[in-house]
Amino acid sequence: MTSQTLSFTILGTGALGGFYGSRLLVGGFPVRFIAHSDVDYIRAHGLRVDSPLGDQHHFPVDVYRASDALPQSDLVCVALKTTQNHRLVDLLRPLVRPGTVILNFQNGLSMEEELAEAFPESPVIAGLCFLCSNKVGPGHIAHLDYGLVSFAPQDARGQAWVPRLMEAFASSGIKVESFPSLLKARWRKLAWNIPFNGLSVLLDANTDSIMADPDARALAEQLMAEVATGAAACGAPFDTGFTGKLLEVTEAMTPYAPSMRLDYLAKRELEIAFMYERPLREVAKRGVRLPAVEAIAHQLRFLDRRNRAGGT
Amino acid sequence: MTSQTLSFTILGTGALGGFYGSRLLVGGFPVRFIAHSDVDYIRAHGLRVDSPLGDQHHFPVDVYRASDALPQSDLVCVALKTTQNHRLVDLLRPLVRPGTVILNFQNGLSMEEELAEAFPESPVIAGLCFLCSNKVGPGHIAHLDYGLVSFAPQDARGQAWVPRLMEAFASSGIKVESFPSLLKARWRKLAWNIPFNGLSVLLDANTDSIMADPDARALAEQLMAEVATGAAACGAPFDTGFTGKLLEVTEAMTPYAPSMRLDYLAKRELEIAFMYERPLREVAKRGVRLPAVEAIAHQLRFLDRRNRAGGT
Repeated sequence: MTSQTLSFTILGTGALGGFYGSRLLVGGFPVRFIAHSDVDYIRAHGLRVDSPLGDQHHFPVDVYRASDALPQSDLVCVALKTTQNHRLVDLLRPLVRPGTVILNFQNGLSMEEELAEAFPESPVIAGLCFLCSNKVGPGHIAHLDYGLVSFAPQDARGQAWVPRLMEAFASSGIKVESFPSLLKARWRKLAWNIPFNGLSVLLDANTDSIMADPDARALAEQLMAEVATGAAACGAPFDTGFTGKLLEVTEAMTPYAPSMRLDYLAKRELEIAFMYERPLREVAKRGVRLPAVEAIAHQLRFLDRRNRAGGT
Repeated sequence: MTSQTLSFTILGTGALGGFYGSRLLVGGFPVRFIAHSDVDYIRAHGLRVDSPLGDQHHFPVDVYRASDALPQSDLVCVALKTTQNHRLVDLLRPLVRPGTVILNFQNGLSMEEELAEAFPESPVIAGLCFLCSNKVGPGHIAHLDYGLVSFAPQDARGQAWVPRLMEAFASSGIKVESFPSLLKARWRKLAWNIPFNGLSVLLDANTDSIMADPDARALAEQLMAEVATGAAACGAPFDTGFTGKLLEVTEAMTPYAPSMRLDYLAKRELEIAFMYERPLREVAKRGVRLPAVEAIAHQLRFLDRRNRAGGT
């Protein structure tokens, strides 16, 4: 099998799965999408992705419901929110045969461990996405900026697949890198996600407003420093200067509404469990506390609960 | 001079000054009010205080603007918000003669030190108010619950006045107590104010909603535990069981909007400097940090700034 023949099933056709699936189609790969609310729309009207890389309109699209019988693909890309992870194994079961690669695009910590445990026959690889992309309507994705995927394998079997995946994504116009330590890669991503996803909800603010205000920025830095403490406690310390550079990159970013803010505004469940609770739990196992992160997590859970209850 | 002849000037005729001034009038004491926005209204229509202690309508009322010449009183009660403290000494200057007692009703830390420094000839006493009271309109106060004043002197000269003040307030129907250590009294009050004032703004919630939600309550407890750490660092440790009892009292309280929440909703400046920054500064001097309190304070400053700028 060469990388040209790799086939993909994208589980979740949102801002992330829709974008990467579209790029893989552009790269000439067979891509099957699993969609939820807009499966009929995509079947009838196709998938639109507006992007600085070129606007795409794919039609027809090979799109399915999760309950449909699907042809086997070489890879299944998990592009669902982690709020769906209580049913993720059930959703993957019919899609994964022994040897099917699971590429996990989710944000958070410890998802790959759980996937590897549930599918011991499958190589599991994390694809950490550095992407500004929003779903703006049924079958319609707006890609704003970035798009790098950092591949980090859960184990040696995954490692063997990384070069092939990098080639496939790179030939589809996606910037790629590989990161040998999954744990380090995950914690590095949390260094951004924990401050900016949470604060975007708590402060009702986009990244530019957070960076422009001395207190919001100081709080982002305080949270990021606590994440650095957590990463070190878990054996994945940040390189010197890493958090400073992350702040610089954020400052230079297009004003951006992190996904948690969009979820909150749409009254969807927030990804608190894998983005906040799992990291806090892993750190607590080592006897370390991250008090400001705990405070933020408590606030987010309160707001999430009230937001979805619909009251004030 | 007997306590019956004590005369009072109340600087600030809001929820607090209006309520205690009204009680002192009921007790038969001469009371002069200094009001700001509603001085003309009070002059024309008097002062109304609705209260479980009995509704009062005082008319005429001896009310002044801060710029008016006033007769000297034995006591000046400071019932302004600490957001006005940059001009407090100037406001007090014409009201304070050598020996005039300054009774400070404000919330926060270190106000009495600053008053004692500015007015070395005056006894300074803190009157810590445990009061649920709101200003509901011009010259109109709604007292909801409680009312205890805890008197804590800044120094020995103040201590000599405490029994007389307790007698005057008690004879006006106010529950009173005295607390020998001003520092301890201030920190004990912060143990409530720091969690519940801040969270009422950040979570857009009253005390009952905070206590009813597992995460909001856990966060209130986390913040309270940090305040206990701060108090101990500053040499004012809490008694065993104090914070637990404070939570019980809060749970049993009438649903209440803390003053900071009302300020926020009315787009008034929040009392962050004396309620959060001074305690954090005093604790930092001892090499101690309170990370969750810091996080809350940053959020409050961000929200306060945006709230008063009028934008989002």
